[in-house]
Amino acid sequence: MEIIDNPRDMQSLAASWQAQGIRTVLVPTMGYFHQGHLSLMEYGREVGSRLIVSLFVNPLQFGPNEDYQRYPRDLIRDAGMAEEVGVDILYTPRAKHLYPPGYQTYVTVDSLSQGLCGAFRPGHFRGVATVVLKLFNQTRPQVAIFGEKDYQQLVIIKRLVADLDLPITIIGRPIVRELDGLAMSSRNAYLSPPERSSALCLYRSLLAARELVAAGERSRQAILDTVQQIIAATPYTRLDYAELVDPETLEKVQVLRGAARLMLAVWVGSTRLIDNTLLKET
Amino acid sequence: MEIIDNPRDMQSLAASWQAQGIRTVLVPTMGYFHQGHLSLMEYGREVGSRLIVSLFVNPLQFGPNEDYQRYPRDLIRDAGMAEEVGVDILYTPRAKHLYPPGYQTYVTVDSLSQGLCGAFRPGHFRGVATVVLKLFNQTRPQVAIFGEKDYQQLVIIKRLVADLDLPITIIGRPIVRELDGLAMSSRNAYLSPPERSSALCLYRSLLAARELVAAGERSRQAILDTVQQIIAATPYTRLDYAELVDPETLEKVQVLRGAARLMLAVWVGSTRLIDNTLLKET
Repeated sequence: MEIIDNPRDMQSLAASWQAQGIRTVLVPTMGYFHQGHLSLMEYGREVGSRLIVSLFVNPLQFGPNEDYQRYPRDLIRDAGMAEEVGVDILYTPRAKHLYPPGYQTYVTVDSLSQGLCGAFRPGHFRGVATVVLKLFNQTRPQVAIFGEKDYQQLVIIKRLVADLDLPITIIGRPIVRELDGLAMSSRNAYLSPPERSSALCLYRSLLAARELVAAGERSRQAILDTVQQIIAATPYTRLDYAELVDPETLEKVQVLRGAARLMLAVWVGSTRLIDNTLLKET
Repeated sequence: MEIIDNPRDMQSLAASWQAQGIRTVLVPTMGYFHQGHLSLMEYGREVGSRLIVSLFVNPLQFGPNEDYQRYPRDLIRDAGMAEEVGVDILYTPRAKHLYPPGYQTYVTVDSLSQGLCGAFRPGHFRGVATVVLKLFNQTRPQVAIFGEKDYQQLVIIKRLVADLDLPITIIGRPIVRELDGLAMSSRNAYLSPPERSSALCLYRSLLAARELVAAGERSRQAILDTVQQIIAATPYTRLDYAELVDPETLEKVQVLRGAARLMLAVWVGSTRLIDNTLLKET
């Protein structure tokens, strides 16, 4: 495995791979790898002949009062894990190279970025869309892989790629969970032991919603009431949102028909966690 | 010459050229060709081995009260002229294919888009940046050529390409003028004979400014005063702006040192004309 931190080196390698017709896969990450990241890399290993993993904690997608500074970082551990999985290139650009003085170009995916996390994190998805487009242009993959935990992000990136005519296939991969059901996240490292217990309320409320739907419930209100009650009954928590949305347009669903995505953002102590699941009529 | 109107056909041809390592040049236009367009094509013919000219009147860069509907169009004449110059592909996509239902991704180049024409045409440069990025992604040129008449646009596209890490060389080419000095523009077709005479005030004021500078004048105020007086003394005219700016940052220049760009936007009747020139210390 090679570690590249200079965008120019990355671009010239990617250009030479492209000229040779080599099928390249990109897994964009912010590092501090867990099994969720590794599952994306393992999948990437299978679908392409070169695997690039980018590791960049992107300041542009953090709000002024968010956790950019304290976001967990451990390059040495990450590099060992990536090498183990068979990553070819670990691309670790620096903020000053991605956003040099005078930088001023931004990409927005309008309506999809407005609700859900976009409503609570203004500018977040503009930062995501911008850095992902830059990483695509620097690494020129045929395939890019994203986790479904960041479901809104996945939908936005798919739209970005279609709207901007990029020749890239976007693949979303299932959420990887701890044994007790907590969705894996680098931010889980922030949780104290009692908060770690409380954090289970996200998965428990998704399960409860699935059971309701299996029992025949189709009403948005009934499903969200149950979710909200479970969160409210859990110590250290504060709900940002629980929403039932169309899996593609992210528009609110009043009555479940076919499939919908249940989306959740919950503060546990000072840590903001997200989770989601597909709800399907059976 | 081949005319392609389907983005998919354009993309697959561009991809095959890219795979063969063919040096492709793009000249993006809104059609209704004049000698200015042809000079860009002729230059493009020289610097690459395939020349694509896109012809698309982009609704996204027109304001609600602007001239999108009445913008002059003549595809048959344009196709004949392009063929004559040796264009390989005339790419004529339709708005419904470039912006299908659900389209929502936009590119902004922030500070460079705020002053000058950006202040008078809100959203204009967002529309330009977005369509140009799409055209780049569809045609994958190594070189793209723009005219200096749209000088702010040229600076914005250069910034876009640098910021988004696109492997494209942007070339700006000199303004082409009628014999009497009027900058060539598809919009000149709107002018009545008396307006056509008045329209000369743009070029005359640029010449007057150049003479002032040659005579030693360096003050922004003195230069702009002269320009404004010439415009004000011309019938049928109304000044949008006259500005002296840094050629790269487009920031206002108070005292000419080295070089500055004199930028001009003037209404002549119901036609908005722009022009500009380089002012240099000698």
